[in-house]
Amino acid sequence: MSDPIGLAVIGAGYWGPNLVRNAMATPTVDLRWLCDLDVDRAQQVLGRYSTVGATDSYDAVLDDPTVQAVAIATPAATHFTLAMAALDAGKHVLVEKPLTACLDDGWKLVEAAEDRGLTLMCDHTYCYTSAVQELRRLVHGGSLGDVQFVDSVRINLGLVQPDIDVLWDLAPHDLSILDYLLPPGVTVEAVAAQGSDPINHGLVCVAYLTLRLSTGAMAHVHVNWLSPVKIRTMVIGGSQRTVVWDDMNPSQRLAVYDRGVDCLASEALGPDDRRQVRIAYRTGEMVAPALTEQEALRAMMTEFAAAITEGRPAATDGRAGLRVMGILEAAERSLRLGGAFVAREDVER
Amino acid sequence: MSDPIGLAVIGAGYWGPNLVRNAMATPTVDLRWLCDLDVDRAQQVLGRYSTVGATDSYDAVLDDPTVQAVAIATPAATHFTLAMAALDAGKHVLVEKPLTACLDDGWKLVEAAEDRGLTLMCDHTYCYTSAVQELRRLVHGGSLGDVQFVDSVRINLGLVQPDIDVLWDLAPHDLSILDYLLPPGVTVEAVAAQGSDPINHGLVCVAYLTLRLSTGAMAHVHVNWLSPVKIRTMVIGGSQRTVVWDDMNPSQRLAVYDRGVDCLASEALGPDDRRQVRIAYRTGEMVAPALTEQEALRAMMTEFAAAITEGRPAATDGRAGLRVMGILEAAERSLRLGGAFVAREDVER
Amino acid sequence: MSDPIGLAVIGAGYWGPNLVRNAMATPTVDLRWLCDLDVDRAQQVLGRYSTVGATDSYDAVLDDPTVQAVAIATPAATHFTLAMAALDAGKHVLVEKPLTACLDDGWKLVEAAEDRGLTLMCDHTYCYTSAVQELRRLVHGGSLGDVQFVDSVRINLGLVQPDIDVLWDLAPHDLSILDYLLPPGVTVEAVAAQGSDPINHGLVCVAYLTLRLSTGAMAHVHVNWLSPVKIRTMVIGGSQRTVVWDDMNPSQRLAVYDRGVDCLASEALGPDDRRQVRIAYRTGEMVAPALTEQEALRAMMTEFAAAITEGRPAATDGRAGLRVMGILEAAERSLRLGGAFVAREDVER
Amino acid sequence: MSDPIGLAVIGAGYWGPNLVRNAMATPTVDLRWLCDLDVDRAQQVLGRYSTVGATDSYDAVLDDPTVQAVAIATPAATHFTLAMAALDAGKHVLVEKPLTACLDDGWKLVEAAEDRGLTLMCDHTYCYTSAVQELRRLVHGGSLGDVQFVDSVRINLGLVQPDIDVLWDLAPHDLSILDYLLPPGVTVEAVAAQGSDPINHGLVCVAYLTLRLSTGAMAHVHVNWLSPVKIRTMVIGGSQRTVVWDDMNPSQRLAVYDRGVDCLASEALGPDDRRQVRIAYRTGEMVAPALTEQEALRAMMTEFAAAITEGRPAATDGRAGLRVMGILEAAERSLRLGGAFVAREDVER
Repeated sequence: MSDPIGLAVIGAGYWGPNLVRNAMATPTVDLRWLCDLDVDRAQQVLGRYSTVGATDSYDAVLDDPTVQAVAIATPAATHFTLAMAALDAGKHVLVEKPLTACLDDGWKLVEAAEDRGLTLMCDHTYCYTSAVQELRRLVHGGSLGDVQFVDSVRINLGLVQPDIDVLWDLAPHDLSILDYLLPPGVTVEAVAAQGSDPINHGLVCVAYLTLRLSTGAMAHVHVNWLSPVKIRTMVIGGSQRTVVWDDMNPSQRLAVYDRGVDCLASEALGPDDRRQVRIAYRTGEMVAPALTEQEALRAMMTEFAAAITEGRPAATDGRAGLRVMGILEAAERSLRLGGAFVAREDVER
Repeated sequence: MSDPIGLAVIGAGYWGPNLVRNAMATPTVDLRWLCDLDVDRAQQVLGRYSTVGATDSYDAVLDDPTVQAVAIATPAATHFTLAMAALDAGKHVLVEKPLTACLDDGWKLVEAAEDRGLTLMCDHTYCYTSAVQELRRLVHGGSLGDVQFVDSVRINLGLVQPDIDVLWDLAPHDLSILDYLLPPGVTVEAVAAQGSDPINHGLVCVAYLTLRLSTGAMAHVHVNWLSPVKIRTMVIGGSQRTVVWDDMNPSQRLAVYDRGVDCLASEALGPDDRRQVRIAYRTGEMVAPALTEQEALRAMMTEFAAAITEGRPAATDGRAGLRVMGILEAAERSLRLGGAFVAREDVER
Repeated sequence: MSDPIGLAVIGAGYWGPNLVRNAMATPTVDLRWLCDLDVDRAQQVLGRYSTVGATDSYDAVLDDPTVQAVAIATPAATHFTLAMAALDAGKHVLVEKPLTACLDDGWKLVEAAEDRGLTLMCDHTYCYTSAVQELRRLVHGGSLGDVQFVDSVRINLGLVQPDIDVLWDLAPHDLSILDYLLPPGVTVEAVAAQGSDPINHGLVCVAYLTLRLSTGAMAHVHVNWLSPVKIRTMVIGGSQRTVVWDDMNPSQRLAVYDRGVDCLASEALGPDDRRQVRIAYRTGEMVAPALTEQEALRAMMTEFAAAITEGRPAATDGRAGLRVMGILEAAERSLRLGGAFVAREDVER
Repeated sequence: MSDPIGLAVIGAGYWGPNLVRNAMATPTVDLRWLCDLDVDRAQQVLGRYSTVGATDSYDAVLDDPTVQAVAIATPAATHFTLAMAALDAGKHVLVEKPLTACLDDGWKLVEAAEDRGLTLMCDHTYCYTSAVQELRRLVHGGSLGDVQFVDSVRINLGLVQPDIDVLWDLAPHDLSILDYLLPPGVTVEAVAAQGSDPINHGLVCVAYLTLRLSTGAMAHVHVNWLSPVKIRTMVIGGSQRTVVWDDMNPSQRLAVYDRGVDCLASEALGPDDRRQVRIAYRTGEMVAPALTEQEALRAMMTEFAAAITEGRPAATDGRAGLRVMGILEAAERSLRLGGAFVAREDVER
């Protein structure tokens, strides 16, 4: 086994402490620094018993030869500059979602990483849950049949963000999951978005996204910061089975239903009985697969180290981040255009 | 107390038997006939022990002087002709949703009933549930504050209809409830709709409606025939409280949350601490009001008889039906236009 | 097909109307009378549109040669006299639970019916639900393996009965289900009961029953009239699988878990690793079988008619009623004795 | 503020790591050592980044003058010896439940601590959850009225213990909560217990406890290692309100129901209407109080430090541990006696 990857976590705010905790628990990672402009905050996150260094100097981190990689958990507006500096210093980079504040910057990061042969990874945490892993097996393995519709709801009394709207705050989760789940070759073609700001916050707090897939099927995402109840569900309707993911039900996150509606080919039917028989219902059992509870962030951290060590793209690499941003930017345009469908930004150049 | 209203139920299909059962249990109604083109079916619905007459002659029903009112539960395409004939014969009319197949026909019915001084009522059954009655009290009484958003989900493995799409089949429920709940003066201004037909049924099976209210707030409706799980929820977000209606949870249909997000006026704040303090969270208790379980259809039937006897508009009269249809027709246009917002059809001429 | 069974329902109180409704919907039954000492109440139950006769004369019912069977839904104290009179008149008898007020009377009914070749059936309604039918298939078919434990909870804000305690009111449901489910040859050997009357009602309102089965396994029943929440669950733990029945969850009444604990034979292990390896966990999937929703009471009524026509014991015959009563009487003795185990009354003479 | 309490955690098994984590997060505690016979395990628990010492020498810990207190999380059989040694060395002691393996030993610890003026505390963790804190306010503050019944269920596919049965493993949670909740002056008078071992494990795996309170009310506890579903509920029925605690529902742990049954004084009623009117139902609303999510173990650790600093008994002191053990020992006797009620061991000498 190779040496652990020397890592620095950048940002001691909301998410940084989670990265610190999981980095410390990942054998293939060696946590060296927690860096924040507010070094007291960094020290406080590390606590009174830690041998990990706290610093407010990003330069010192990048100069440290024992640091091979950085994990960036700072506000989105700073991602590009910090990540590019790290790549320029020859460090591998893990970035919180969204990858950058705009698609162009994202492209520059992806190209810079590819040019330098460095790993650029997005922390699409949900993709590393056992639920999404199983969902991917179900979709890719064919158990569900063709994907007929996707409906995702992610609402709660959320931390209303001062600088980004609910779309950029919450929808990256749904979109990165979708990006990870969809069968090979199926892409998002166009996006329509509606949103409102009923609390006069200045940014959209309730939003609905409708995605048109290349197969003609539709995916829909509801994100909302104002709901007093927390709902995180995704339904993936298939021609063979339909799976319901309820992330707030730890004892039964996934339910795979052998239920659905089939339309029989009407050619095979006589003219008179056409209406009666063309629709058939399947009403079979439901199976809730056994899932191993695992901390997603630890699996993500392990994948980051493995991608570096093996010199391969991470499962949620920079290009996955670009695809998510391409949808978000199109959604923003649709919002401004009053909800009409807008083609996804091209992210395959 | 006045004599019971002599009633004939027209149509012995899916819904007719429910009208028959509730008419028989309503003291202010005297059920005379069940009429269906298939008289055997009508007789089967009545059963072996009934003194109510079965007939296939609508003319005979309209000629019967003991019949003062008809309740029409036939396919939507026949509503206009049957209802107009009844009005012409001087009968009061109750019609299943949707009122008619197109808005123009609806207008003709409303005008005909008003000209003749007859009651025209829509069976917007949900409005007569104790849950919706309580919701109306909460909204109209001011407990919720201003309505900030409405989100309604009505999905299940539904009876896929051969002649109408999921919008016309299911959304009338949500829209009639909304029509009943919204505070006086608040109207639906515009509608956007997205839909898909992933089973190649020929009609939309999954649809999303976004309504722009006159206050600027947004209401959203998700209807779906293909979901293996049955969900019927409506969230009404208010500036003071938010209520969640879960109709599949009979032991706790309504939950009123004293939780939410407030944006404080930024004028009162200094320039530096503006971002930190402008958002405040309320995280109070939840109250589930005690509801009396009642059969909604019986309350609706009682209201029909009372409106006739008292010569007043029913709580869900023909104009309520028109308002619902005005939204549905705009939604259909939005669907054809690719999802852009479309102004609601004018129904206030 | 033979002629329908001419039936009279006796008692127009809480349960009688349900029997009337289901008798009218059962093709193999011909409902002739509803009999109650209060004939107005009987007429009210039948309603204004019924051709079924109302009467307050039980003698007239028994004298009517078109009546072949009676269904008795009167207070428990009257069951014996009414049922014996019906048997003496040559009528088949269906009785609500409990069969009679005491075991001796129950025995007399069973013997009288057997002597006369008449059907005596107990309305153990739950046994005719699709959930219990499936549970029986799971237990008898071997899917669960050996039954290791049974835990049943039946609590709600109940109709506190003036003349019988919560044990005699609610536990017959659990005990009749258990009687129907247990594998052939497995019997209840002894019973312990604890109870209390915290509202000073004069009769036990909260009670716990512990049953020792002939296999050594334990079954436990919790009945309670004072709970503000309604819970109706039964867990049947098996050596292969465990099934949870949640009757308040119509969309998923049964859940069959491939999870459990196995103790490996310790003989096969060395002395040192004994503790570590003797316990193994199964943590497989959960399957929720598809159940057809059916009205249990209609299936019960159909079985009553079929048992009469075919001259065979009903699935829940008088002897099943005796077995339930044998447990209840033992439970009452245990209550008086302070909760010690008491052998079940012998009901196999 | 006084100096933090120097602490050593003893035992790096199942629970020790939780104590370590929370001690590190508690400002009033200064964690010095993690001690385990297997020092590698202790080091592994501490991880690669910790300044806390790992040791296998309990003597060294007790000799360390910077250690003022120990937290013992070793197998129950060792509690007495380790705790007594710590008290003899002048250290304050926190012990995992159960306090000791037998009541006599528990008494010796309590007396030793009191003689030496040292804090002896039991880690009854649940008492420090916000749910139990609120329950205690509801009971002690009178909102519930008189406690009429308590029903507690704690079942799941548990870690089957090799050396203690399910009663000693799980019931201490329920009993310590009950001890904390019951109104002043209300005591457990007698205990009946039933249990079984259907997997031939050698120790009881499924058990039911019935407690007779000094008020005449009954409390019941169901503990089970074999259930594939995890249930942790406690219902406290009161004469004014009833509260349901569902610990597996984080979004609504407590529900306070204004529902119940009242028996009116029969003296006030005439002889004829006695049965009709003596029972009255309350069917009011349900309120789910807002709870602050807090880590119970951190609050417990804070209380331990505060009790030491302030020289007062901890909220769950050694005597609370004795009361729990007095019930457990009586339960074991009842089990051996076949389930009859047994007086609680005297713990008030």
